[in-house]
Amino acid sequence: MPPTVDVHTHMYPPALMSVLRARKAVPYVRLFPDDVASGDRLVILPAEETGSTTARGRPIGPEYYEVSEKIKFMDAHGIDISVVSIANPWLDWVDPSEAAAMARIVNDDVERMCREHHGRLYHFGTLPLSAAVEDVVEEVRRLKTLSYCRGIVMGTSGRGEGLDDPRLDPIWEAIEQQQLLVFLHPHYGLPSEVFGPRTGDYGHVLPLAMGFPLETTIAVTRMILSGIFDRFVDLNVLLAHSGGTLPFLAGRIESCIAHDAHLKKEGKIEGRRSVWEVLKKNIYLDAVVYADVGLKAAIDASGADRIMFGTDHPFFPPLDEKEDKWLSVTSNMSAIKAALKNDQATEQDILGSNAVRVLRLNS
Amino acid sequence: MPPTVDVHTHMYPPALMSVLRARKAVPYVRLFPDDVASGDRLVILPAEETGSTTARGRPIGPEYYEVSEKIKFMDAHGIDISVVSIANPWLDWVDPSEAAAMARIVNDDVERMCREHHGRLYHFGTLPLSAAVEDVVEEVRRLKTLSYCRGIVMGTSGRGEGLDDPRLDPIWEAIEQQQLLVFLHPHYGLPSEVFGPRTGDYGHVLPLAMGFPLETTIAVTRMILSGIFDRFVDLNVLLAHSGGTLPFLAGRIESCIAHDAHLKKEGKIEGRRSVWEVLKKNIYLDAVVYADVGLKAAIDASGADRIMFGTDHPFFPPLDEKEDKWLSVTSNMSAIKAALKNDQATEQDILGSNAVRVLRLNS
Repeated sequence: MPPTVDVHTHMYPPALMSVLRARKAVPYVRLFPDDVASGDRLVILPAEETGSTTARGRPIGPEYYEVSEKIKFMDAHGIDISVVSIANPWLDWVDPSEAAAMARIVNDDVERMCREHHGRLYHFGTLPLSAAVEDVVEEVRRLKTLSYCRGIVMGTSGRGEGLDDPRLDPIWEAIEQQQLLVFLHPHYGLPSEVFGPRTGDYGHVLPLAMGFPLETTIAVTRMILSGIFDRFVDLNVLLAHSGGTLPFLAGRIESCIAHDAHLKKEGKIEGRRSVWEVLKKNIYLDAVVYADVGLKAAIDASGADRIMFGTDHPFFPPLDEKEDKWLSVTSNMSAIKAALKNDQATEQDILGSNAVRVLRLNS
Repeated sequence: MPPTVDVHTHMYPPALMSVLRARKAVPYVRLFPDDVASGDRLVILPAEETGSTTARGRPIGPEYYEVSEKIKFMDAHGIDISVVSIANPWLDWVDPSEAAAMARIVNDDVERMCREHHGRLYHFGTLPLSAAVEDVVEEVRRLKTLSYCRGIVMGTSGRGEGLDDPRLDPIWEAIEQQQLLVFLHPHYGLPSEVFGPRTGDYGHVLPLAMGFPLETTIAVTRMILSGIFDRFVDLNVLLAHSGGTLPFLAGRIESCIAHDAHLKKEGKIEGRRSVWEVLKKNIYLDAVVYADVGLKAAIDASGADRIMFGTDHPFFPPLDEKEDKWLSVTSNMSAIKAALKNDQATEQDILGSNAVRVLRLNS
């Protein structure tokens, strides 16, 4: 049996945790004086500091930073290999003067964890995106020299101006040259007014279920529209949450492009690579979509050889702490089985073989 | 051969056009003094008044208001029956004191057009949502008495507070009792800052391809989360653009609900009807998704007996005016063929038989 590989699984490594614990502003780990009993809470967005006590940040336990907890989780769910990535908001918030050094420290700490669990763990490194471009490029090249690093995790902000910012071109070029996979992951969501009145009645459902996927979809569509995949034809991107909503909306995006008078006038309709071409040549999708309907669309859009299993651990823990297996994991596993019926070979591809091949996990 | 039916096709009937031409604020039809040559332009959102001349509103020709143009378009594309609906923003903007009367005038005008083209045209009526609730309910009942009316077109604003506003309950109750289908259509999109810098470089692609679908997805998810489909189990809603992104995101929405501590504490997780149940019992989806990938997801989510062909005419005209057939229409037709391979019976269901059955177009 080929291994089961989790390509979407997060950690805040100890080196980063110390920084987050020492900080006095978002993002940080803190106690709330009026609710000390709930313990340390991780706050990663300004809006999470307000509101009712349960809505303020989230409890942060060892599953966020202890590598032994990651291994325990993997064993409980039959996961052989995890490709861990730092969770949002990565180093997007770091002062430019400190970013390059902090990226090295944090990436080395993750690399150490992988070495200590040789064969079980690989990782996606993190870039000091606020630093000078040449420092970012240098960290790209350095990451390639780390034995367990297979790519780079990145949010949608880039250098604060989105991923279609032309100032990122030297960084894309370096990533393409080093053959590192970019794992594109949402963090910023959508402004809360988008979800309308009474949003609070629905817990975190609307921003989590809709804000995150749309953030990813907008970011990758901007990359496509700005021609990044025309300039860097070998750049490879793994999209979180099965592409946000890209597989479903790709037809509408192509139709909107084909009908846009402005783009036509600018000569931008002909000659570009289509969303479909990019989906099949530059994009990989994780299988974190929780149902066969979405997963089948992801497979249809990119091809079953480009889909890779993931869990989003340690997020989405079971509400009933006594559960052995996490519903968020088993529903993603069931979705693969349901989507593929009895095609066990393709099931194994998605569960692990694709990741082994794409990320060279046997080298 | 069963008829081909277009369930997503818009008009601004002459009675409404006179109002829009006479108005001095959005929404309205106007000339721009610095660009008189471009003729009458329809402006339906405040943001459309600013920016470059080509971005200001859109040219409005007879295809928006002349019924003969609708028939000509239908003939050119082999469409036997159209179920027309007023285009956005409907009567959402009307002063409460005038709304009820205006709804009657406008709905009667559309009914007249259908009568004059007996057998070719049916319609979805429009409600005076800003009027007193009892006046809205009265218009629901009156619409049911119109020979060619089969449902109600509606935006996501409701009475200004979204469709999960409890003040809408008497209206949903009346619609359910009268067995009218609600055609839920986006208009308001998302705030432009959501799309980030350089959005203008991409024409209207981002707001049209992403803002509209997400608006619909949020609106219907709020309806589900607020329990509307638990209170009105026979309420039926047709979602524009194949549900926005609902088929793709339904798994994630269900997972977010199942993992939400707030909803659990409030006792809102157990006992509710799931998104999947609602998709298969209360929701119909049009087939306006422009690719087989999205259409297959729509079919997987709701069932092939709940999908109905549409065009979105007169929007998305070909950029090259000499085209006989509109790409926006042929791509939706090709998507049906591609999604169903050689299953001609199901193809005919989606192209027309479902609409005939659901909307009683043979009675």
